[in-house]
Amino acid sequence: MHEFTTRRKVEFADTDMAGIVHFARYAVFMETAEHEFLDALGTSVHLELDGVKIGWPRVRIALEYKNPARFGDVLEIELRVVRKGRTSMTYGFRFTRGDGAEVAVGEATSVCCAVGDNGTLRAIPIPEVIAGRVEQAPR
Amino acid sequence: MHEFTTRRKVEFADTDMAGIVHFARYAVFMETAEHEFLDALGTSVHLELDGVKIGWPRVRIALEYKNPARFGDVLEIELRVVRKGRTSMTYGFRFTRGDGAEVAVGEATSVCCAVGDNGTLRAIPIPEVIAGRVEQAPR
Amino acid sequence: MHEFTTRRKVEFADTDMAGIVHFARYAVFMETAEHEFLDALGTSVHLELDGVKIGWPRVRIALEYKNPARFGDVLEIELRVVRKGRTSMTYGFRFTRGDGAEVAVGEATSVCCAVGDNGTLRAIPIPEVIAGRVEQAPR
Amino acid sequence: MHEFTTRRKVEFADTDMAGIVHFARYAVFMETAEHEFLDALGTSVHLELDGVKIGWPRVRIALEYKNPARFGDVLEIELRVVRKGRTSMTYGFRFTRGDGAEVAVGEATSVCCAVGDNGTLRAIPIPEVIAGRVEQAPR
Repeated sequence: MHEFTTRRKVEFADTDMAGIVHFARYAVFMETAEHEFLDALGTSVHLELDGVKIGWPRVRIALEYKNPARFGDVLEIELRVVRKGRTSMTYGFRFTRGDGAEVAVGEATSVCCAVGDNGTLRAIPIPEVIAGRVEQAPR
Repeated sequence: MHEFTTRRKVEFADTDMAGIVHFARYAVFMETAEHEFLDALGTSVHLELDGVKIGWPRVRIALEYKNPARFGDVLEIELRVVRKGRTSMTYGFRFTRGDGAEVAVGEATSVCCAVGDNGTLRAIPIPEVIAGRVEQAPR
Repeated sequence: MHEFTTRRKVEFADTDMAGIVHFARYAVFMETAEHEFLDALGTSVHLELDGVKIGWPRVRIALEYKNPARFGDVLEIELRVVRKGRTSMTYGFRFTRGDGAEVAVGEATSVCCAVGDNGTLRAIPIPEVIAGRVEQAPR
Repeated sequence: MHEFTTRRKVEFADTDMAGIVHFARYAVFMETAEHEFLDALGTSVHLELDGVKIGWPRVRIALEYKNPARFGDVLEIELRVVRKGRTSMTYGFRFTRGDGAEVAVGEATSVCCAVGDNGTLRAIPIPEVIAGRVEQAPR
């Protein structure tokens, strides 16, 4: 699988005094869409494999804002696997409103890490249980 | 010590589409004021004593909202130790704006817990290093 | 209608370093459940009646925390109309986890207000379009 | 002025279950640093000039995460005016921890807009009261 679509309704607490969704909330929306994608694949962002806890810290995000979204809007969020690396995954996102207007586009790169006892993070190859299910989208 | 005052400036991301500070943010403001109080006492919310990690989960909060606060307002936050129990602490809070208007009053009760390896929480008597420095405010 | 049930899945950004849902998030969960309740009644938190904008600022919230919720938990949120006043509404909330454990109980009081041009708020009787659909729950 | 430095202490609510500052919080940290910069210049993000309300919606952000920050860390945030355009401003940010480790670098572009009565946004040249005080940093 290399594409996934989800929806979320804008909540009051997502807005700011400009009357629109606060720009930082889209970073959370991307993250949750990524987790829903892994769920849909039958796996999870929160794995423990052979006693090793796996985490996916982000190393890069980017967002471009095109049109505002407002309280009550239902955002459609399209996720696309832009790049499947050996230890990292880059996802592309596109947010549209119910009226079809493009709200934002974004990208996020997460690195697969083994989480040590003291919370330390060490990049590791993506485990087969995930790597085997995620495909890179065609250009 | 049984009283403590701090200030914080309302940020853009604290506001909602009604143009005022979102009511849930005051819960965060109370928490941070509590941590600053413990810092001011020379201790911390984040202790490890004799190898036991200490945590302070909240068991109860209450807030009453009197007047709105807006972007850029500097809130004065007064903390008062309402009750010092054997295993818990109840703090009272009062938020005022720069013009003296009362913005909100609140209360929060935290329980002193030993944090287990698996994140389990067990209530314990407040360690002397904290209990010895915090006084209950007179009625 | 005087009761309403909804669900929401705990997101990564809802958690804090204690590994559990941050206590302030429940205030947002209550608010969104209240909005979903009004939606289910065929009305909205966001009305304009005869040219008057209606808002529902909170004047009081209270929350008691019973058991932690964690990333991925699906919370069931039961809303109950505790009191339907002339200008205000008090809702009770009960959060349970998928395993049936009670996570939190809360209450929130919102006042029906006419929103002035400059963002001023004036309490008004709840409009019939809402008051006529909401019932107070029996004791 | 083309450079500005501020500090902020990581709050408990900034963290997530990985024990580190949630990546979306840095977007808020950038925004607040930008506002503090405008304050330091004797102006504001929140102007009304000749009856026209001015807003600065973001059109683009990017963040790279280098090292985690944790509860209690004091972040030093360096802002730099990367580009001063006719209608937009691009700021660069660098976050470092108390121990000198680089935590994150970021960029944000805001467009100067006239805010219409209905919340519509129209890009306008940056007013002289701001443009005259902000300089583009040398390469």
